[in-house]
Amino acid sequence: MEKLNDLIKGIRDIDRDMLDAAREHTAQLVMPPRALGRLHEIAEQLCGIFSHLKPDVSKKAFFVMAGDHGVADEGVSAFPQQVTGEMVKSFMRGGAGINILARQLPAAVTVVDMGIIPQIEESGNLLVRKIRPGTDNIAKGPAMTRTEAKKAILAGFEVGSAAIANGVQLLGAGDMGIANTTPSSAIGMVILGRTVEQMTGRGTGISDEAYASKRGVIEKAIKVNAPDPRDGLDVLAKVGGFEIAGIAGLVLAAAYHRRPVVIDGLISTAGALIAYNMNPFVAGYVFAGHTSVEQGHKHMLAYMRLQPIIDLELRLGEGTGGALAMHIIEGAARVCNEVLTFDEAGVSKRVAG
Amino acid sequence: MEKLNDLIKGIRDIDRDMLDAAREHTAQLVMPPRALGRLHEIAEQLCGIFSHLKPDVSKKAFFVMAGDHGVADEGVSAFPQQVTGEMVKSFMRGGAGINILARQLPAAVTVVDMGIIPQIEESGNLLVRKIRPGTDNIAKGPAMTRTEAKKAILAGFEVGSAAIANGVQLLGAGDMGIANTTPSSAIGMVILGRTVEQMTGRGTGISDEAYASKRGVIEKAIKVNAPDPRDGLDVLAKVGGFEIAGIAGLVLAAAYHRRPVVIDGLISTAGALIAYNMNPFVAGYVFAGHTSVEQGHKHMLAYMRLQPIIDLELRLGEGTGGALAMHIIEGAARVCNEVLTFDEAGVSKRVAG
Repeated sequence: MEKLNDLIKGIRDIDRDMLDAAREHTAQLVMPPRALGRLHEIAEQLCGIFSHLKPDVSKKAFFVMAGDHGVADEGVSAFPQQVTGEMVKSFMRGGAGINILARQLPAAVTVVDMGIIPQIEESGNLLVRKIRPGTDNIAKGPAMTRTEAKKAILAGFEVGSAAIANGVQLLGAGDMGIANTTPSSAIGMVILGRTVEQMTGRGTGISDEAYASKRGVIEKAIKVNAPDPRDGLDVLAKVGGFEIAGIAGLVLAAAYHRRPVVIDGLISTAGALIAYNMNPFVAGYVFAGHTSVEQGHKHMLAYMRLQPIIDLELRLGEGTGGALAMHIIEGAARVCNEVLTFDEAGVSKRVAG
Repeated sequence: MEKLNDLIKGIRDIDRDMLDAAREHTAQLVMPPRALGRLHEIAEQLCGIFSHLKPDVSKKAFFVMAGDHGVADEGVSAFPQQVTGEMVKSFMRGGAGINILARQLPAAVTVVDMGIIPQIEESGNLLVRKIRPGTDNIAKGPAMTRTEAKKAILAGFEVGSAAIANGVQLLGAGDMGIANTTPSSAIGMVILGRTVEQMTGRGTGISDEAYASKRGVIEKAIKVNAPDPRDGLDVLAKVGGFEIAGIAGLVLAAAYHRRPVVIDGLISTAGALIAYNMNPFVAGYVFAGHTSVEQGHKHMLAYMRLQPIIDLELRLGEGTGGALAMHIIEGAARVCNEVLTFDEAGVSKRVAG
């Protein structure tokens, strides 16, 4: 536990002085005051993260964390459990949504087996950091031990740290795991103190009956496990998942090394929430890619005071919403770095207030 | 007039059969049903526009239409009139917002002098299609003659048609013209039949006093000119602008040649509104890049039943919101073209409804 605690304590707030300097720079750009709205805010946050007035986010990489969930036995998903491993193979082939949207940017995509059931050999774009083949059923007991939760977070932290050491300037968090909206909603309920109705959606698209049953499963998981809302590691171990832990570690790595990370939908946001619960300064390094159709998502974002960048009714996961938002984040950086000032452009300033 | 009328009559609806076929294809993609939400809708619309199940929008180009406005004499803008020409030079240098955001895509940027006051020689990325150096003051009479309006629309149409003949697959409309939110709001008021309060914003950021005065100027312009809401050419001639006419022509060209065009904020949307007024099938070819802070903008989009793609509190114009949205539009096409189907990926289908 010492190592994780040291890392958590090592996370500092973004550079607020640089944020102020960035705002002064924005005011000089050859356009009406703050005419690009949230693009300026994003750029200024990047300046604060990098402690630099010319933030460069051209090297981008996604990490799709994958894990299986014992709670799939409760019939909480519309898809069979083997789809987790099948989708991992699709990511490796480059044929799934995140591959296509990352290629467009371009951003690299690495899949991380945090704990899927099938054994797939590590190769080019697959890292195997398997804690074990799937969590236990949270409706009956804890998903994993506290030691496993810590190990999984540190695995995600190491993956993120290695990418940053390798020059990655903008990280993206993605997820794959059949049934993983169930632990994500449970995490949100516990940490936010909200109701199961507020935090639970239909995931991949389940019937009314299955949806009612899913809510019951989540309530049962929380009752059986009684996670401590003030202890993110406890919440993660009791009602979380291995890929969610990996994402929490990735987010902690970004904040620790002062690099931005883009989260996606309900699952990656649950991972960020665990990290935020450990150290709220984390939020300064996180960009919320989008707001999901999953109803608990917006509550989680609001809790961390994160404003989503796009809203296109996505509910896929994998990092897809984050990938679309990454273009906007990079655009914001480029505007900050490349648009001429009034003086440079020789353009007259405002005459009226 | 014959030529313009023939072009307008030549515009047909998008291919609705192809839209249905595209929806069937979406259902096969290796993800839960319609899990990428509006991205699927955008892709399907592209299929309908191109009459093709694999729409390609990789060749992209922006046209920033520029014009000066006699109504600037009324003090409706916070910036002096010479900024129009100064910004044209900034676009030519590649240093303004639209240049940076288009370069990121990448998309070409061509500036079109539709009627700015200064004489700037045609060169690499500047086309001179000047009707004359600035419109007349709409608070005192018509902006231009009906013949000039027609000529300006046809100039925009020819610019768009030449780009499409040159292989451009996705057009972007941008604008530059000090005071041009005033004619744009006036166009919206007349065609939508809404109040000056609903349709008028603060443009580049004017004071309360100047804002009240601007609303008075718009009301006066409509009273003095009495444009006929059913006759888009009359509205354009009486309370419009040369760059707005050029944008209307560009939008007509896209629809006529069955290519998508992305509009930006209040001004380019006013141009699209003129085109839509001439033939409502135009709307099928138009993507609304974003929703502007300018309050009349959302009413115009709703009138044409266009749903904005992003909402980042932008109010710059130049095509900047369209440029950010173009990435998402191209992403939608790529998802449609490149994501594997369940069968191709060997992934199991849903077991539960």
